[in-house]
Amino acid sequence: MDVLRNLSVQIPPTDKPRVVIIGGGFAGVQLARNLKNKPFQVVMLDRNNYHGFQPLLYQVATAGLEPDSIAGPLRQLFADQKDFHFRMARVRRIFPKEKRIETLVGDLNYDYLVIATGSRTNFFNNEDFSTQAFPLKQVPQALDLRSNLLQNFEKSVMSDDPEMQKRLMNVVIVGGGPTGVEVAGALAELRRHILPEDYPEIDFGKMEIHLIEGQPRLLNGMSDKAGKWALEYLERFDVDVMLGKFVQKFDGQFVTLNDGTVLETNTLVWAAGVKGNLIEGLPDSSVVNSRIKVDLYNRVHGFDDIFAVGDIAHMVEGEYKNGHPMLAPVAMQQGRLLAQNLVNMSKNKPMKPFHYENRGAMATIGRNKAVVDLPGNITFGGLFAWMFWMFIHIVSIIGFRNKLVIFSNWAWNYFTYDRGTRLIIRLFLPKGKEREKFGTY
Amino acid sequence: MDVLRNLSVQIPPTDKPRVVIIGGGFAGVQLARNLKNKPFQVVMLDRNNYHGFQPLLYQVATAGLEPDSIAGPLRQLFADQKDFHFRMARVRRIFPKEKRIETLVGDLNYDYLVIATGSRTNFFNNEDFSTQAFPLKQVPQALDLRSNLLQNFEKSVMSDDPEMQKRLMNVVIVGGGPTGVEVAGALAELRRHILPEDYPEIDFGKMEIHLIEGQPRLLNGMSDKAGKWALEYLERFDVDVMLGKFVQKFDGQFVTLNDGTVLETNTLVWAAGVKGNLIEGLPDSSVVNSRIKVDLYNRVHGFDDIFAVGDIAHMVEGEYKNGHPMLAPVAMQQGRLLAQNLVNMSKNKPMKPFHYENRGAMATIGRNKAVVDLPGNITFGGLFAWMFWMFIHIVSIIGFRNKLVIFSNWAWNYFTYDRGTRLIIRLFLPKGKEREKFGTY
Repeated sequence: MDVLRNLSVQIPPTDKPRVVIIGGGFAGVQLARNLKNKPFQVVMLDRNNYHGFQPLLYQVATAGLEPDSIAGPLRQLFADQKDFHFRMARVRRIFPKEKRIETLVGDLNYDYLVIATGSRTNFFNNEDFSTQAFPLKQVPQALDLRSNLLQNFEKSVMSDDPEMQKRLMNVVIVGGGPTGVEVAGALAELRRHILPEDYPEIDFGKMEIHLIEGQPRLLNGMSDKAGKWALEYLERFDVDVMLGKFVQKFDGQFVTLNDGTVLETNTLVWAAGVKGNLIEGLPDSSVVNSRIKVDLYNRVHGFDDIFAVGDIAHMVEGEYKNGHPMLAPVAMQQGRLLAQNLVNMSKNKPMKPFHYENRGAMATIGRNKAVVDLPGNITFGGLFAWMFWMFIHIVSIIGFRNKLVIFSNWAWNYFTYDRGTRLIIRLFLPKGKEREKFGTY
Repeated sequence: MDVLRNLSVQIPPTDKPRVVIIGGGFAGVQLARNLKNKPFQVVMLDRNNYHGFQPLLYQVATAGLEPDSIAGPLRQLFADQKDFHFRMARVRRIFPKEKRIETLVGDLNYDYLVIATGSRTNFFNNEDFSTQAFPLKQVPQALDLRSNLLQNFEKSVMSDDPEMQKRLMNVVIVGGGPTGVEVAGALAELRRHILPEDYPEIDFGKMEIHLIEGQPRLLNGMSDKAGKWALEYLERFDVDVMLGKFVQKFDGQFVTLNDGTVLETNTLVWAAGVKGNLIEGLPDSSVVNSRIKVDLYNRVHGFDDIFAVGDIAHMVEGEYKNGHPMLAPVAMQQGRLLAQNLVNMSKNKPMKPFHYENRGAMATIGRNKAVVDLPGNITFGGLFAWMFWMFIHIVSIIGFRNKLVIFSNWAWNYFTYDRGTRLIIRLFLPKGKEREKFGTY
């Protein structure tokens, strides 16, 4: 990476104020889009060159979709936007006094800085989990999980040790939020319809899928009904849901729960929590619970030229005494409002305070079940909810091509019970000398 | 990979003779398919869990298709075939006297062994090329090349050193066979239609695409006309085709040719040659030019229970004094005939000698040009050839779902000039301690 030394974040000079957005997730993208044709120069930095639609990441992990269906290049997204500049560069530190950020490829000045860095997997400082469990927050992680699952089945066919087979086939998912529930449902679907055809040698009656949740219910952010229905659907799919339990230890083969239960598996999916993706350079007083304290205008506590939006922002508003849930709709609404407020500021008009409009929440379980909460205490489930879930996701995903690809994948999946992408692309192989043992073919 | 120690290639016992096929490429797949419902137990071993459609690999490398479009899981392919057993395992060595092979996960006995291991990139023992060039024989390699190309453009935007920009943007392709020609054409297409929209900061007039070929013509295996037309199309696309030249050195920044010419690039695509994917355990007398010597029945020289088919097989037949070209049609025809010959053997009927029926060859250049050779000295080019090329590839690819996905991708690509998969998934990052320099976001 020697080449990095000679790079710099060069942005053309401008007389318009420069808004630097760190992160091309839901919040960053909405903000940037809504600054189109406004009197600002917009610079977006991201470590990836794409915007990922995280709610569908579990589909990549369970061989339902390929990455290109749920991610779109950021440059393409903003191809028609003038004075917008994307740079694929990691950010190291903020220097608020100097209105400057330090990136991996040099420094950049800003007039307004917007931190939209989102969240990342929270392993709660447990090294067992951070080194051996599979997180599910980024596209490459989803591909890793998929490759691992399929490789384990291949190995399982070649084992005559029943204990080892168990560990290869079983999956333990930690976290009963939407990601955990959706992974469990999709795996149960695979176990029922796809895997038995691929692996006639395996008795899938023996494959256990465990879902561990510390709370006494599933889908804690949703209605009671939604939680109950999700539990019901999962149990109908033979997922072993263990509520009110915690994982204490994982050595790569055995998972130990707080009540002493030991589960055998090589595959621990970690969907138990996220935390803010903090950047260095802000005072401790601006940080609360790994998120950045903001006022109702998404201004970072103590600054009037730094903002934080989306998962990383901790705003106390209305009923949300501990900040908003880390969800795409919050991020999108904050991004949109901040764009408007920046414009207002530039016109010396007053800014509008943020109010989260909760339009509902959803989770899908398997091929044709879902639970949906709508405002006004409306909850519905089953096939209709699944169709609703599908419709909303297809509508929300960015890019017409992606909509088409996803729709045709799902239609295919629905009618044929087939999932098309069971390829082991990211093979886990030792490097260097160790590699040679693996032979030439 | 400790787990490997406890694995073994367990195949259910049978009274039918066991055919072990090493390799799930064109030859292996055709052979296995044609042994369906025949009096054999069929075992297929492959290091991957999928059959890759190699002629379209360059499309994955140039952001035209995702891997799931050109690869299908082998297990799915044979899901309906009785007494067929797939094992994802590398093979280390053959022990012909004991009718046994040694795999990474243990030994396996055979009655008939078929070596269908195909070919791999030939770097002609040059370490410069093998460590720093991008080969294009496998799906992960195609993804690596794609990620590298896109990462280079991202870096180029952040460089103010014109020399460095040159090296980041230029691409040198070595080898003027179908792969080299197709990569060059697809890159030229990207340079013209896609990249300028993604990177308005870059002057793509400065991006050079060089195609180096040692012979005085392109597409050496095809007709003179096809070679000439391909050259014409590529030059129309501003590809710098250098015929009769060889690459001598590459240090990761500069390519030196045999005539002293120095080209600046970080990206050397190596499409200059392949060699047989040999397996240890055969006597030297059975090997010629890195391929396995076979008779007209694909029997390996000196054995009557070991066969070799496809790229790895070196058969002297008719006009093919130095073996057949390493092409999919040869492999498929040999695979099919061998299935029939194995059946004949089992019935004590005579075997049929192989005769390669050359049904033509094709190469595509960019979005809507191709050259096609048909038997009877018919050569055609241009848009019609491209449509023919497209049709043949869609028809030949395995799996109805793949046909659909590819067709819709191409239709999309054709009508919108867009290519959907410009995601940098396989990011090149240093490991361990080095990684930390890259910051948390």
